[in-house]
Parts: sequence; structure tokens; C-alpha cells
Amino acid sequence: MSAFDLTAYLNDRRQRVDDALATVLLPDDAEPPSVHRAMRYSVMAGGKRLRPILVIAGAEAVGGAAATVMEAACALELIHTYSLIHDDLPAMDDDDYRRGRLTNHKVFGEAVAILAGDALLTDAFRLIAENAARVAKNPALVRDVIVEVVEAASTRGMVGGQVVDIESEGKTVAAETLEYIHLHKTAALIRASLRVGAMLGGGRADQLAVIGEAGRSLGLAFQIVDDILDVEGTLAELGKSAGSDERKGKATYPAVHGIEASREEARRLIGLAKDELAAFGAGAVPLCALADYIFERRS
Amino acid sequence: MSAFDLTAYLNDRRQRVDDALATVLLPDDAEPPSVHRAMRYSVMAGGKRLRPILVIAGAEAVGGAAATVMEAACALELIHTYSLIHDDLPAMDDDDYRRGRLTNHKVFGEAVAILAGDALLTDAFRLIAENAARVAKNPALVRDVIVEVVEAASTRGMVGGQVVDIESEGKTVAAETLEYIHLHKTAALIRASLRVGAMLGGGRADQLAVIGEAGRSLGLAFQIVDDILDVEGTLAELGKSAGSDERKGKATYPAVHGIEASREEARRLIGLAKDELAAFGAGAVPLCALADYIFERRS
Repeated sequence: MSAFDLTAYLNDRRQRVDDALATVLLPDDAEPPSVHRAMRYSVMAGGKRLRPILVIAGAEAVGGAAATVMEAACALELIHTYSLIHDDLPAMDDDDYRRGRLTNHKVFGEAVAILAGDALLTDAFRLIAENAARVAKNPALVRDVIVEVVEAASTRGMVGGQVVDIESEGKTVAAETLEYIHLHKTAALIRASLRVGAMLGGGRADQLAVIGEAGRSLGLAFQIVDDILDVEGTLAELGKSAGSDERKGKATYPAVHGIEASREEARRLIGLAKDELAAFGAGAVPLCALADYIFERRS
Repeated sequence: MSAFDLTAYLNDRRQRVDDALATVLLPDDAEPPSVHRAMRYSVMAGGKRLRPILVIAGAEAVGGAAATVMEAACALELIHTYSLIHDDLPAMDDDDYRRGRLTNHKVFGEAVAILAGDALLTDAFRLIAENAARVAKNPALVRDVIVEVVEAASTRGMVGGQVVDIESEGKTVAAETLEYIHLHKTAALIRASLRVGAMLGGGRADQLAVIGEAGRSLGLAFQIVDDILDVEGTLAELGKSAGSDERKGKATYPAVHGIEASREEARRLIGLAKDELAAFGAGAVPLCALADYIFERRS
């Protein structure tokens, strides 16, 4: 297991995701050009591609191939990108920079940014439907994959977390509220990425349950590490200024539990996820390495 | 045919749609409450329920029953409502009133309004997927219904129309640009409503083609009549002040072609749609009456 080359794995999967993303977006000169430029600007801004890579790794864990899930992998990245564009709006987090570049609305204006987000969310469901129909033998699987993504992105998931996040700004939040925000805003879509990959990869119900539990732990750990990096990271590492959570009065793990307890909790969750993933044997080697990476990353 | 009671038909179908909509939304006290109240506020604000009724009428035209398509009917209304919430935002049309009530962001704030729109769009795809999987014998139909809605709501449809609409404000627009805006912003979703109803109702490919053509004509006529009503209607009839298009410098048919030519074009399109719908015989009696209503309505 120590022989697994995570860097090579991430580079390869990220490249395949980037190539696929470039083809699923309409060209910049498609009518109307402004919104297509705005969509491509944010989607192709780089980033770790964590969610699409988790879709792929989820499929691989149950014996599926990356090629089986590429449209769904792209769809999860489109949904993530739409959420970033809308979160950055003046009415929400009011951020000027993202991944080291001006945010979407600073370049294209608020109206086009809102509509670009709407369009990315809309297009994501085409990709998921096309992928599921290509792989599925029955209509129920297509439905299940879409319902999985809807649950994770809706008020029961990501949007619900964002609402509570915004409504908690500048307030002292209880530990349970903080966990609600992180589980919904971040962990739900990370969990869904793994589950969708496993569903399309042919996973059984018991496998989906296990990978879902692991995804919840990984997703929560990911956001705790994000909170820690916002305190400890540098501008060069993060592509945005450190300390932005504190300036905005955001509910974070370090603010509620302190840095050391936050790091311990992230470590515990990563361990929990890896224990759960052990059920997949060799198929989960990439996922276990990804779990370590989520804890150790510097950006 | 003159014996068809359109008022009774509309009342019955509207009531069934309203009942179904009330059940597909989470209750106002679901966590987090603000966004669920915001979603319900706009969805249950009334309105003609034209798009869901067209889904039902599309199914009926090919011999399907209303009960076969109720989730999809609701989904089309959720998508329409999301588009109204986002269109009304300060960064877009900046409207304070809609259907005689304060707009969503005036009541719930911009952040929650944006997120309520996002959530309605997201939830719509669950309803469509569930409906299609319930009716479909193969995965391809589920995919086709979703792709149909995505096309109509994306930058190739509604969002594309909204982008050009906003970018044309205060400018003199060519007749072709005006037609682009109306076909994309309004007609695309109306056309998709009919086609989705016909697809789920068991329509054949040739029937889908015909009903799609009729939907395009009906949708364009609907928006032209909307433009005329904005000039001629009263506050009581419209639930918003008349003349708002002119104040905002909106591209409209009366502004480009004059009132009389606009009315003539709407009449021509309605005739065209009814000619196309004749192919469905008795099954299209409600749709033909709806076509007349779209022309004659006062709000």
C-alpha cells in the first residue's frame, strides 16, 4: 500500500477530468457569449477537482472504471462551481478573490454570475442523466443517482448548510450548529460524489452504505482542515488571503474548538473513514491515500 | 368543440396542481426554516399555473392522464418560480412586486432568495426523475425527459434568453434579437412543458415533434401578449404596475413592432398552433381552448 503513488494518481485523474470538463462546456462564443465565458472562467479556474476524483475513486472502489463515470464526475464539479459562484456574490460572502483570481461577479457582473451559476446547476443534471442512462439497465438507477445528487445539493444538503452558514455569521454558534453547517454545506456533496461513483460503478447496497459513511467522515474532515488552513495557510498556498473566516465572523472549528482539538477531530474522522474503507480491500487504496491527503494538504 | 368548458378545466387542473405543489415542498418549519418559507412563499403565491397545466394537457393530447404527470407538472412550476425569484433580484430586473405581493428578496433578503431559487431548481430535477422512473420502461426515457427540461432551462433556453434580455436593456434591439429573447426566455419552457407531458403520457416521436412546434408558437404568442398587457393592463389585473417594461427599457414586441402588429402576430401564432394541434383530434380540445385563452387573457 505504501507503494501507491498518490501524486501520479491525482495528476492522471485530474487531467482526465479537466479534459472532460473542457468538452462538456459550450464554447466561449456560443450565444450568448457572456454567460458561456463566465461558466468556463470559473469551471476552468483549476482547483483540486476533489469531487470528480471522488466520483471516479468511488467507482473504482467497487470495481468500476473511470470512463464509466466521467459525465457524472464533471456534473459534480459543475455543481461545486455553481455553489462557489453564488457563495461569492455580494449578497452572500462578498468575496473578490477565489483560487487566486477575481471572483465571477467581479469579472462578469452580478447578473451574469447568478445566471452562470444557474446554468451550471442545470447542465449538471443533463450530464448525470446521460451518464446514468448509458450505464443503467433500469429506470430506477437513473432516478436514484439523480435523487442522490438532489438530496446533497438541496436544502437537505448544501443549500441548507449555506443558509445556516450565512445566518450564523457574526454570531457565537453552538458546536451542533457548526457540525450542521459543515455536514450540509460541504460533506453532503463529498459523500454524494463517492456514492454516485459507486452507484454508477455497479456497487451493491451494502457497499453504498459503507462508502456513504466514509464520505460523511471525509467530507467533515475536509471542511475542518479547510477551517484550519484559513487560520494557518498563506496567500500563496490558498489563492486567497488567510484569516478571511475570522474577519467575516464565520462559524469554524478552530473558533469553536481551538486549533489543536480541530486537528485531532479531523485526524479521528480520517481514521474512521479509512477503517470503513478497509471493507473494499485493494479497491480502496486510492481512496485511503486520498483520505490522508485531505488531512495533510496545505491548500 | 364549443361545448368545452375551459374555465372548469382550468379550475380543476389548477387545483390539482396547487394540491400537489403543497405536498412536494418541505414544511415551513423544516430546517433551515427561512429558505423553506421563502420557497413556499413564491411557489404558493398563486399564478396561472400555465406550465404545469400545459404538462397535463400535453399528456392528455396523446391519451395520457393527469395523474401520470403530476410530479413533472410541479417540477415545471418550480423551475418557472425559481426563474422569477432570480429575475426579480436587484442585480437583474430589480422588481419589488410580483403577483401583487412583495418579491422574494424584499421579504427574505437577497441571500435567501438566491438560495431559495437554487433549491427550487434542484428539487425540480428530483420530481422529474421520480415521475419519469415511475412511468418509463427504459432508462432512455428518463434521460430524454431530463435532457428536454435541461435544454429548455439552460443557456440554450431560458437562461440564454434572460442573459440577452438583461444585456439588451435600454438599447434599441433588432427584431431578430427580440425574437431570440422571447423564444428562449419564455417559449422554451412552455414548449418543454407540452413535450414533457406528451413524452410521459406515451406520445410517439411524430406527436412530440408536432406538439413541440405548437408549443413554440404558443410560447412566443404568450410572451407577445404579456408585452401587450404590460402596456394596456391595469395594476389590478396584472398584480404589478403596467408600463414597467417601458420604464426599464425592456425589449418588447410593442416597442419594436407597435401594438397592432404585435396583436396580429400573436393572433397568427395562436392560429398556427391550433392548426398544428388539429393532428391530435379530440385529445387537443383543451389545448386549443388554452391557445385561445393565451390570446384573450387580461392578466
